[in-house]
Amino acid sequence: MSDTISPHWHIEFFAPDEAHMRGISKIYASEKTPFQQVEVIQSNHYGKCLILDGHMQSAQVDEFIYHENLVHPAMVACPNPKKVVIIGGGEGATLYEVLRHNTVEKAWMIDIDKRVVELCDEYMPEWHRGAFKDKRTILMFKDGRKFLEKSKEKFDVIIIDIPEPVEAGPAYLLYTEEFYRMVAEKLSDNGIVSLQSGCSAEKELLCLAAVHNTLKKVFPLVYSWPANVPSFDIPWSFTIASKSVDPKALKRDQVDKILKERKIGHLKYYDGETHEGLFFIPKYIRDGFVKIKDIIRDNKPLTYRFIGEEKSSR
Amino acid sequence: MSDTISPHWHIEFFAPDEAHMRGISKIYASEKTPFQQVEVIQSNHYGKCLILDGHMQSAQVDEFIYHENLVHPAMVACPNPKKVVIIGGGEGATLYEVLRHNTVEKAWMIDIDKRVVELCDEYMPEWHRGAFKDKRTILMFKDGRKFLEKSKEKFDVIIIDIPEPVEAGPAYLLYTEEFYRMVAEKLSDNGIVSLQSGCSAEKELLCLAAVHNTLKKVFPLVYSWPANVPSFDIPWSFTIASKSVDPKALKRDQVDKILKERKIGHLKYYDGETHEGLFFIPKYIRDGFVKIKDIIRDNKPLTYRFIGEEKSSR
Amino acid sequence: MSDTISPHWHIEFFAPDEAHMRGISKIYASEKTPFQQVEVIQSNHYGKCLILDGHMQSAQVDEFIYHENLVHPAMVACPNPKKVVIIGGGEGATLYEVLRHNTVEKAWMIDIDKRVVELCDEYMPEWHRGAFKDKRTILMFKDGRKFLEKSKEKFDVIIIDIPEPVEAGPAYLLYTEEFYRMVAEKLSDNGIVSLQSGCSAEKELLCLAAVHNTLKKVFPLVYSWPANVPSFDIPWSFTIASKSVDPKALKRDQVDKILKERKIGHLKYYDGETHEGLFFIPKYIRDGFVKIKDIIRDNKPLTYRFIGEEKSSR
Amino acid sequence: MSDTISPHWHIEFFAPDEAHMRGISKIYASEKTPFQQVEVIQSNHYGKCLILDGHMQSAQVDEFIYHENLVHPAMVACPNPKKVVIIGGGEGATLYEVLRHNTVEKAWMIDIDKRVVELCDEYMPEWHRGAFKDKRTILMFKDGRKFLEKSKEKFDVIIIDIPEPVEAGPAYLLYTEEFYRMVAEKLSDNGIVSLQSGCSAEKELLCLAAVHNTLKKVFPLVYSWPANVPSFDIPWSFTIASKSVDPKALKRDQVDKILKERKIGHLKYYDGETHEGLFFIPKYIRDGFVKIKDIIRDNKPLTYRFIGEEKSSR
Repeated sequence: MSDTISPHWHIEFFAPDEAHMRGISKIYASEKTPFQQVEVIQSNHYGKCLILDGHMQSAQVDEFIYHENLVHPAMVACPNPKKVVIIGGGEGATLYEVLRHNTVEKAWMIDIDKRVVELCDEYMPEWHRGAFKDKRTILMFKDGRKFLEKSKEKFDVIIIDIPEPVEAGPAYLLYTEEFYRMVAEKLSDNGIVSLQSGCSAEKELLCLAAVHNTLKKVFPLVYSWPANVPSFDIPWSFTIASKSVDPKALKRDQVDKILKERKIGHLKYYDGETHEGLFFIPKYIRDGFVKIKDIIRDNKPLTYRFIGEEKSSR
Repeated sequence: MSDTISPHWHIEFFAPDEAHMRGISKIYASEKTPFQQVEVIQSNHYGKCLILDGHMQSAQVDEFIYHENLVHPAMVACPNPKKVVIIGGGEGATLYEVLRHNTVEKAWMIDIDKRVVELCDEYMPEWHRGAFKDKRTILMFKDGRKFLEKSKEKFDVIIIDIPEPVEAGPAYLLYTEEFYRMVAEKLSDNGIVSLQSGCSAEKELLCLAAVHNTLKKVFPLVYSWPANVPSFDIPWSFTIASKSVDPKALKRDQVDKILKERKIGHLKYYDGETHEGLFFIPKYIRDGFVKIKDIIRDNKPLTYRFIGEEKSSR
Repeated sequence: MSDTISPHWHIEFFAPDEAHMRGISKIYASEKTPFQQVEVIQSNHYGKCLILDGHMQSAQVDEFIYHENLVHPAMVACPNPKKVVIIGGGEGATLYEVLRHNTVEKAWMIDIDKRVVELCDEYMPEWHRGAFKDKRTILMFKDGRKFLEKSKEKFDVIIIDIPEPVEAGPAYLLYTEEFYRMVAEKLSDNGIVSLQSGCSAEKELLCLAAVHNTLKKVFPLVYSWPANVPSFDIPWSFTIASKSVDPKALKRDQVDKILKERKIGHLKYYDGETHEGLFFIPKYIRDGFVKIKDIIRDNKPLTYRFIGEEKSSR
Repeated sequence: MSDTISPHWHIEFFAPDEAHMRGISKIYASEKTPFQQVEVIQSNHYGKCLILDGHMQSAQVDEFIYHENLVHPAMVACPNPKKVVIIGGGEGATLYEVLRHNTVEKAWMIDIDKRVVELCDEYMPEWHRGAFKDKRTILMFKDGRKFLEKSKEKFDVIIIDIPEPVEAGPAYLLYTEEFYRMVAEKLSDNGIVSLQSGCSAEKELLCLAAVHNTLKKVFPLVYSWPANVPSFDIPWSFTIASKSVDPKALKRDQVDKILKERKIGHLKYYDGETHEGLFFIPKYIRDGFVKIKDIIRDNKPLTYRFIGEEKSSR
């Protein structure tokens, strides 16, 4: 057996009866910060991986899918994004993708967990590729909601790159109607907010549907789409919302032209054709947005902890 | 621990260093047929599951994604599908979805493994829903390639619902250029062939790209698209090919009209909007179709066994 | 991989960071009784297994080690055991071993969980071998401590065959000083009590040492010894205590003579040589009995839940 | 889940359907030497562990059980051990235990795998405690059998501390009748050979029985006994053999006196009482030595690979 089976494994328990096993060869870091448990590991199959509180955040071989979906649809749909805020985004890859748009003049990255950013800076240069040191970068370690509340700027793009609001941890306060109303005030007229919105499986649609519908209470234009990040094991989703600019109106040639003008360089997942496809989503997701009525409010978080548990709240 | 963690598990090893663990409560069947190892289990999270040679074939909660993608795009694109052949499809769900089209007069299902069909008939009525007993059904247990070779019929839709051609098992002979040439001869002028085409992850694109490119050698119109079947853990793909009819030309209203006219009833994944979206696929898949040159021939199978091993053949 | 690795597994979590995986082919039963979670499974390696609240109770291939250690040293040391009580012992194997001594006139088996006994009766005949139907058997489903309290009999041997007193479940009330005082009253002058006393690993010695020392408060003669039940994964222990009869005084020839006279038949683990060896135990266990001072009382249970957690109470 | 379950695990597959999972926090080393795959890990429960070819060799919390059993019974039974050879013993703990006997003038340690010794020297000082640098130590990296063949010394104690002879790897040549004959020639008149002899479970007794019986062909006095090393998961065994000195003749007081005279210091497992107990072994092991007839010869190795597979050769 010793010839064939990996001796070392990372096991991600999604629930007491669902888990994924990844053969690993190194544990670069395994420590508890004031905010979360952090692991940086070397998976045989997925390369380096960042894991927070037991859940895969991004893996070397497919982080491009996550970060290109999170950043470029919103950035491209925004006519001239100069000021961009990222809340969360510890790996630095979201920041890197944002800075590829040569329109950007200032990019704030506000992560509450300094230690995670330090570990990513040290062990995961393939993600940030020097972005933390870019002259346009303003890196701050504080609560993202408080930062936005106190800020007097107007931002063109705001990207929320934090864990989804399960388990009613403090992250849920960046997913509430009250928070989104404040985000809307801080956006410029052509501004767009982009966020990762959790699992898009039919059985686990509560988070995505609640986020989508909560954004709908605040923004006239809201689009969600699924994307497959293989290292996540479960299908994922992204959502953008805007006050006036309609990302769906952009056709493939326009997208490709913008990418070229802004000198983005080589992308692997996103281009004009991918952009057009974002707005065709499977029927069960559209049906879910109608059937699931939950709205997340400061005093009304989602309360499930595991995949499979969210049924009760439907 | 006993309160929280499942005591019983099915573990699917994709590779010596990648595996998925599913908590189970029952093993309905676990036996070796002349063709493969069969398991029918009750997963806590995914409901009943059929597993062949260690790999998930379909799970109760999301088999609709697999079977609707495999059947309806091809059936809808075919103007008037009367004669349909399914090769494989042991669960009976492909047959069920085909028979929902009221144009169908005869549906042949040719599965090499009688025992698998018996087990599915007994334990998985939620899949076949009586389709094996439909008057239009002709169920045969034999080699699908030989059946087609000897048949003197012309078929409107041919659906290949068998495991992907890894490990160079006999299934690969239903994925070769020679086989597809024969399929083309057996199709009516408006005929379409549809098949599952394996994993669509960037790292594991060899199978999908090779199938796509092999079909391209034979058919003028070939379309592949990714779809997420959560119980598969890895992103999946489907491919259709035709001699003259162009599925991409159908717009959403036309699709919805056809579904209504044929009295399909409620679908969960597929409708007009979903159909239009099939033809926008992520850039890395399109790039892969260009970069990966493999063509599968009777004397040139794909030879990898595990995810991760296929790199060598690029 | 599918050729080599078992698809189905039972995983016993001893702690959040210790687990054993057993390939299984059948789940005979998996249900929650009013008292505990019960599993009867078919392990490829260990045969049928009974698992209570996630922990292996006995396995077909090595239950002989557990049951011969639990029953025969005490029965043999007792000059003429006529009346025997078993508390717990759901599988029926303890009862079977007791009844092999032809001196026995009456054997009470008092198990609190009727459903467990029903499942063992149905699925595990290899354990009880008809003992439940023996004319000398009196089978009752009630609280063992209450049974003893109310009983007006004097018993020659009392066997406590229940889970060890971890997690402060109700079982601990059959491990306290108060309980043992009552047991002493119910024993005949030559009477002996025998019990399983949990893990005998150096790191997990708290349970064994506390049970040993608690018995020492009540009985002048107390002997504990380790034994290896491979399906338990961790080394186990047994303890006997008596008011006057000294089991250590019996030499191998005497033991073998008694076994022969009582027409016990073939044993696999126990005989005269094994008996003599019980009284030589590794130094770390003897040292532990001195260092660990815990006494279990009705109002002072052991409080750890997992292996590894018991250190705090030393 | 993330609060409770370890994220990182070492999984030891004993067979395709038996495995043990250990939560780990560090991988100190994981590399392939010319001879074997080596892992040095930090297990939460067992401390540092050395793993060779997928199998636990020794763990920090219970290596004392293994090394005290392997070394002290033989060393104590030898009246005045001055020259000692260890074959294998990479961790250095066997060497350390040998050097505790102040009679020792020279201790040769012959390990074929220099890299394993380097890794143990660097990462596992708790095992060797400086023994590699003791003036009496002669450390050589070569084939142990060839070393003995060429040596012109007579040795008082020879200790074979290598993996058991499964899988017909080269290690089996240090378990054959031919090898033992040569060992007998190299021993002084009062000399003793000591070795680990594999699993002592009833189902897996082939290795122990074959080693025992093979030694019996060469030495008049052979004793085997089981011992529980919890981190091994399965019960283990040790065997000593001698030409004239009878270890069983030593009673507890004599053993304790020798340990004191030689200024051994604190031991955890072994003392006079433990020594006496070694010679009382469970009946199934004695029965196995009679039933299992295999003799290991240079041209007749044991051929099973996994636990469970050895049945065929009975």
